[in-house]
Amino acid sequence: MKEIPDIIVSRLPVYLRALRHMLAQGKQTTSSQELGEQVSVSAAQIRKDLSQFGEFGKQGTGYNIGFLVDKLREILHIDRVWDVAVIGMGDIGHAIARYHGFADRGFRVTRIFDNDPAKIGQQIGEFVIQDTAQLTETIRQAGIKIAMLCVPATQAQAVADQLVKAGVQAILNYAPISLGMPESVRVQNIDPSIGLQRMTYYME
Amino acid sequence: MKEIPDIIVSRLPVYLRALRHMLAQGKQTTSSQELGEQVSVSAAQIRKDLSQFGEFGKQGTGYNIGFLVDKLREILHIDRVWDVAVIGMGDIGHAIARYHGFADRGFRVTRIFDNDPAKIGQQIGEFVIQDTAQLTETIRQAGIKIAMLCVPATQAQAVADQLVKAGVQAILNYAPISLGMPESVRVQNIDPSIGLQRMTYYME
Repeated sequence: MKEIPDIIVSRLPVYLRALRHMLAQGKQTTSSQELGEQVSVSAAQIRKDLSQFGEFGKQGTGYNIGFLVDKLREILHIDRVWDVAVIGMGDIGHAIARYHGFADRGFRVTRIFDNDPAKIGQQIGEFVIQDTAQLTETIRQAGIKIAMLCVPATQAQAVADQLVKAGVQAILNYAPISLGMPESVRVQNIDPSIGLQRMTYYME
Repeated sequence: MKEIPDIIVSRLPVYLRALRHMLAQGKQTTSSQELGEQVSVSAAQIRKDLSQFGEFGKQGTGYNIGFLVDKLREILHIDRVWDVAVIGMGDIGHAIARYHGFADRGFRVTRIFDNDPAKIGQQIGEFVIQDTAQLTETIRQAGIKIAMLCVPATQAQAVADQLVKAGVQAILNYAPISLGMPESVRVQNIDPSIGLQRMTYYME
């Protein structure tokens, strides 16, 4: 398969989210114009992005939303459910462990970890906090490939290294630090300050 | 001033974060190679990005980190502190209101809101939860230009519209929905499922 630019890949989940929103509202077809308005992307861009993966729309009748949703879920490999481990049960990790929004988007948290003896064994939602010392073994045995890293910046690299040893291939990093990772491991960073600074650049 | 592509702007906060990390470790100078390794960007790209804003490094001696940090803070308009309102005191809003990582990155939360009568008046950290009904007036009077939106998806657009009326120019949107906003208002979205889906695309 030809290599698709990551900038295009990055837009697909946004299209998918908007399409599912339309579906939930009872809509069955849409156009690149309408979808574009929803996600602030030009209709031409949407057509160009989707055309990388096949022919999904018909001239004049637009896109069948259900079909396009199914296709995007296949393309993004979320036509299955991925187990996810959450490491670090501070405020953010805690919020994530209790968040119910992952289930219908391809993910389910199945393990949560912390290294604080006062937290280990505690229940959060349906989970019991496990000791980070057992992280590598537990994650490897469970075959978990995705982790959300919610530990303090000072511990993030060390824990990320453990995750890689455990076979994790994708890390959603909430620690405000850039992780050094082997090329085989993907990282997406969630740092609210960086989101804010991208906007203040444009403000007076 | 010439217009800088947003993709370049988006990398500046990441450079800044890494440079401040170096500074905290006692380093005084760095190179585009070293910085590039920290942030997984090529040295050539870093030189090209920074050259859009002036001459910050010297051939052979590299960058003075403190100087470059100051310049980036100026460029990103965070050589001041921006007041921020947080709307929605669920788990995520709660975590943000208690988060201490904004202070030295140009932001401080000064107001928090919720529409739940059971929550209004409650104390979270140093703040008292205010009624969302007073949001527009309070934010306008306080001159707050930045908000973090942590309400459920179903309420997000309506609250965002209120924020715009209140004069907010930048919204960090945690609700898993695309907001329709006037062009004068910037939005950055934080949706962990989208971060995860950008990675599962590459996984088998």
